[in-house]
Amino acid sequence: MNQNTREDAVLSAIEERRELVNDAIDDELPMAEPERLYEASRYLLEAGGKRLRPTVSLLVAEALADVDLLSADYGEFPALDDSTVDVMAAAVSIEVIQSFTLIHDDIMDDDDLRRGVPAVHREYDTETAILAGDTLYSKAFEIMLRTEADPEASLDAIDLLARTCTRICEGQALDVDFETRADVDADEYLDMVERKTAVLYGAAASVPAIVMGADDDVVDALYRYGVNAGQAFQIQDDVLDLTVPSEQLGKQRGSDLVENKQTVITVHARDHGVDVDSLVDADDPENVTDAEIDAAVAALEDAGSIAYARNLAEDLTAQAKAELDGLPDNDARDLLREIADYLIERGY
Amino acid sequence: MNQNTREDAVLSAIEERRELVNDAIDDELPMAEPERLYEASRYLLEAGGKRLRPTVSLLVAEALADVDLLSADYGEFPALDDSTVDVMAAAVSIEVIQSFTLIHDDIMDDDDLRRGVPAVHREYDTETAILAGDTLYSKAFEIMLRTEADPEASLDAIDLLARTCTRICEGQALDVDFETRADVDADEYLDMVERKTAVLYGAAASVPAIVMGADDDVVDALYRYGVNAGQAFQIQDDVLDLTVPSEQLGKQRGSDLVENKQTVITVHARDHGVDVDSLVDADDPENVTDAEIDAAVAALEDAGSIAYARNLAEDLTAQAKAELDGLPDNDARDLLREIADYLIERGY
Repeated sequence: MNQNTREDAVLSAIEERRELVNDAIDDELPMAEPERLYEASRYLLEAGGKRLRPTVSLLVAEALADVDLLSADYGEFPALDDSTVDVMAAAVSIEVIQSFTLIHDDIMDDDDLRRGVPAVHREYDTETAILAGDTLYSKAFEIMLRTEADPEASLDAIDLLARTCTRICEGQALDVDFETRADVDADEYLDMVERKTAVLYGAAASVPAIVMGADDDVVDALYRYGVNAGQAFQIQDDVLDLTVPSEQLGKQRGSDLVENKQTVITVHARDHGVDVDSLVDADDPENVTDAEIDAAVAALEDAGSIAYARNLAEDLTAQAKAELDGLPDNDARDLLREIADYLIERGY
Repeated sequence: MNQNTREDAVLSAIEERRELVNDAIDDELPMAEPERLYEASRYLLEAGGKRLRPTVSLLVAEALADVDLLSADYGEFPALDDSTVDVMAAAVSIEVIQSFTLIHDDIMDDDDLRRGVPAVHREYDTETAILAGDTLYSKAFEIMLRTEADPEASLDAIDLLARTCTRICEGQALDVDFETRADVDADEYLDMVERKTAVLYGAAASVPAIVMGADDDVVDALYRYGVNAGQAFQIQDDVLDLTVPSEQLGKQRGSDLVENKQTVITVHARDHGVDVDSLVDADDPENVTDAEIDAAVAALEDAGSIAYARNLAEDLTAQAKAELDGLPDNDARDLLREIADYLIERGY
């Protein structure tokens, strides 16, 4: 398939599952007292989102069970023995964790907007946003307990969820720490990205295998699929921040440079003699000019740093796709490969 | 036993277990990278604390197993079948949740001090404190998975932990909400206290029973023991805020009144014709005079509100103690009864 056809296939797969995921979120996270807390907890989930991670979870389930796409009920899905499990609960749990991390990240980064609406701490207040995130955190565990998997498998799923959350916190702490360090190397950067972003893709891809009773080597391969694809996704994000016009990006192009964010691009450039800290004078994305960003991007291109990042993202994507070789050969596996490509080919 | 002897017995029981609990916290929550995050996560736990909740957990285990006090290894504790379980892991998990909630509460309430040291968000910064709390949150689940209980029992323990965290968030949200409401009634107040404070005592008391394989009715009775004792504890806290001199309290006496905090005392007073909102003019604990607080306390005493609170705390304590009737008659059960008394008899 060419890129456009592939992107269409991915977008359809997401689109076809989004409504089901949204209904399941409604069911698993009903309104309750106190209302304001539950409204704030649901606010970001209701504001939209592609539901990429749940889509990965549901496709993994379909690939493993080797069923036709959308032919089986995700709530009573055929496991690899004779039982059925609620793979949708696992998928929703992952999305709820994603939402909790976004709410707390927006407080920490003091970001005003998310998914085109005010961040939770702006729409409500910081206290409510901290509590809304904390509520989603425990709800994600409550929901993960509802897969009706074999007890040992359920415990493995809970264990993965808990360790994933710990790693996300570590990754966020490293990311903040890197803003004040000029000596971050590529391995450190990739480790940070693995923890902050990629492990949740790893969990999204491997949790359905765990609750369906797949062998450890299958679970591990799916985890590596998610982690590699997730790292590639983040590196592509770093490239897009420099190369996509601000209007399309929805924020100032080059804002990572302005805010001294370490990316694999700045790490490479610094290693190749570029004075990264002097590339942009402005220290506020609102005061930077397009000319200044253009000059900075040209310097990064001359150093080969942007090409390096693109190559790295492509390598990681190829590794991700190769991890799927052990799955049954079916449409769901094809879509999982295409999603990995989509993550680094999307324009913004 | 008279009150002093009883208090000595309770303090000894706590003291004798504190070092073991602290060693277990060290083992279950080792330093890791990034160092600053783990330092911040451990900071409040290392600052002290009586370890009241873990002590309750360990005594429940000893009462149920009907062993001599401190005679069995908490890490390989005799369960009610032929297996052993790590009840210390369950106890530590509860204390780690307590620590997470304190860190986030201090951010929300903008409190500067905790356990005589700067709050985590003052010693570090708000971002780090949010992340430190989030890290402890997932660590508590990781630790609760290490009890080596029967898988079904482990899942029940995780389920209780998750639901307890959700309820704590709800309770904190209600508490904040009540500060702007003048029509809170006693039932609403007790419901808030149950969620915010008491359910964690309920979890501390019932989780060892779950992982040791006790019957549901025993688990439920222990949960109610913890919840009733925890509610009484909070009501006593409200009484102490009005009746203990500032020096002993470690903060301004009457600060709840100044800050418009709803307590069972103000709820009762309002119901009995006291104009609670006019009791104290100052709206900052630093600007209130002792004379103003004395007059307010006299008005609350005249309305019978402080006596009402004391009676309510005593009733709840009696209910808590009665829930222990089904346990084997042993020293550990006696100590659990004495802890319930201690919670409302402590001077500050």
